[in-house]
Amino acid sequence: MQPNQGILLVISGPSGVGKGTICSRLLQKLTDIQFSISVTTRDPRVGEQEGVNYYFVSEEEFMRMRANDELLEWAEVFGNFYGTPRYAVQAALDAGKDVLLEIDIQGAMQVKASFPECVTIFVWPPTVDELERRIRQRGTETPEAIERRLRKSKLEMAHVVNYDYVVVNHPGQVDAAVGEVEAILVAEKAKVARRLSQLQAILKEV
Amino acid sequence: MQPNQGILLVISGPSGVGKGTICSRLLQKLTDIQFSISVTTRDPRVGEQEGVNYYFVSEEEFMRMRANDELLEWAEVFGNFYGTPRYAVQAALDAGKDVLLEIDIQGAMQVKASFPECVTIFVWPPTVDELERRIRQRGTETPEAIERRLRKSKLEMAHVVNYDYVVVNHPGQVDAAVGEVEAILVAEKAKVARRLSQLQAILKEV
Repeated sequence: MQPNQGILLVISGPSGVGKGTICSRLLQKLTDIQFSISVTTRDPRVGEQEGVNYYFVSEEEFMRMRANDELLEWAEVFGNFYGTPRYAVQAALDAGKDVLLEIDIQGAMQVKASFPECVTIFVWPPTVDELERRIRQRGTETPEAIERRLRKSKLEMAHVVNYDYVVVNHPGQVDAAVGEVEAILVAEKAKVARRLSQLQAILKEV
Repeated sequence: MQPNQGILLVISGPSGVGKGTICSRLLQKLTDIQFSISVTTRDPRVGEQEGVNYYFVSEEEFMRMRANDELLEWAEVFGNFYGTPRYAVQAALDAGKDVLLEIDIQGAMQVKASFPECVTIFVWPPTVDELERRIRQRGTETPEAIERRLRKSKLEMAHVVNYDYVVVNHPGQVDAAVGEVEAILVAEKAKVARRLSQLQAILKEV
């Protein structure tokens, strides 16, 4: 008995919590999970490829997609638009593939609203001090920008209550966090609610 | 961040599906899970020990426990009473220990009703033919008893829709089924709904 639908796994969390590291490790380990590729209106940077890093679209095309409810979520950042195309995600799920979406908290909440059967995981810092340390050590931003990011991250933590699962990212133990995400995926596939149609088909034969 | 409450894991399924094998393997692997010990009014058999196999109680004591809602579930089998004492389960959970309860379908539904935060797993046969083969090969019963058990098992399968999870017990792959149960336990511990009080305590400090 195999689940016929893939699972949309949304990994999110405050800035600086290390969700990117967890996602890249997950993609290395689970070769049959598909990473969701965003559409964007910004120009490709050197080395970026269409359909690998992003789908590059015109602003007109983006607005058309947004108006037609073709985006699971979207955001505007520095005048450029970014979004998650519903069609590509749905096609992968229908083919039985799981899809991984790494996204900020606002985006995750949009996805949950437009695709309630997704599984949302909030990556949680081991301590608030550790989160602060990680944000400060990036060192690529001005002190003001760092303070802004820090305040934002702390506010974002309150959104954990809207998520399905919380996974703590302890320093130097990214594999433990990845293991928890894998367990969540196994458990979600074993949920009766996700397998009702298959189970009912078998029960008819009994 | 550790969950402060243990999880009551209810493993159930039709007669002959192999839930006993899964539970013994699970108890071997997860040494910090506690097996729930039932109370019974029947006499101890040779070698059975109080507090190991059962808690042996008088019928009067059993009826008192039942009337005081001290049993998570109970059943009468051939004139003897069996039940799951709520106090022992609750004490273990409060100490942060997980508790494993292997139980038939009627009992599992009673436990879910009186302890809704429990996690229920339905062990599912790979095929109905395989379930039939397993029941027939026991060979300790009359053909009529076997037919009765078979009909009962098939009826019981319909109850899967009332469970949280379904785990298929494929022949010769009990470790795979045990792995799924372990993953379910990990995932349940990561559920935001089970960690709300801890998360809210941390959020107050932020």
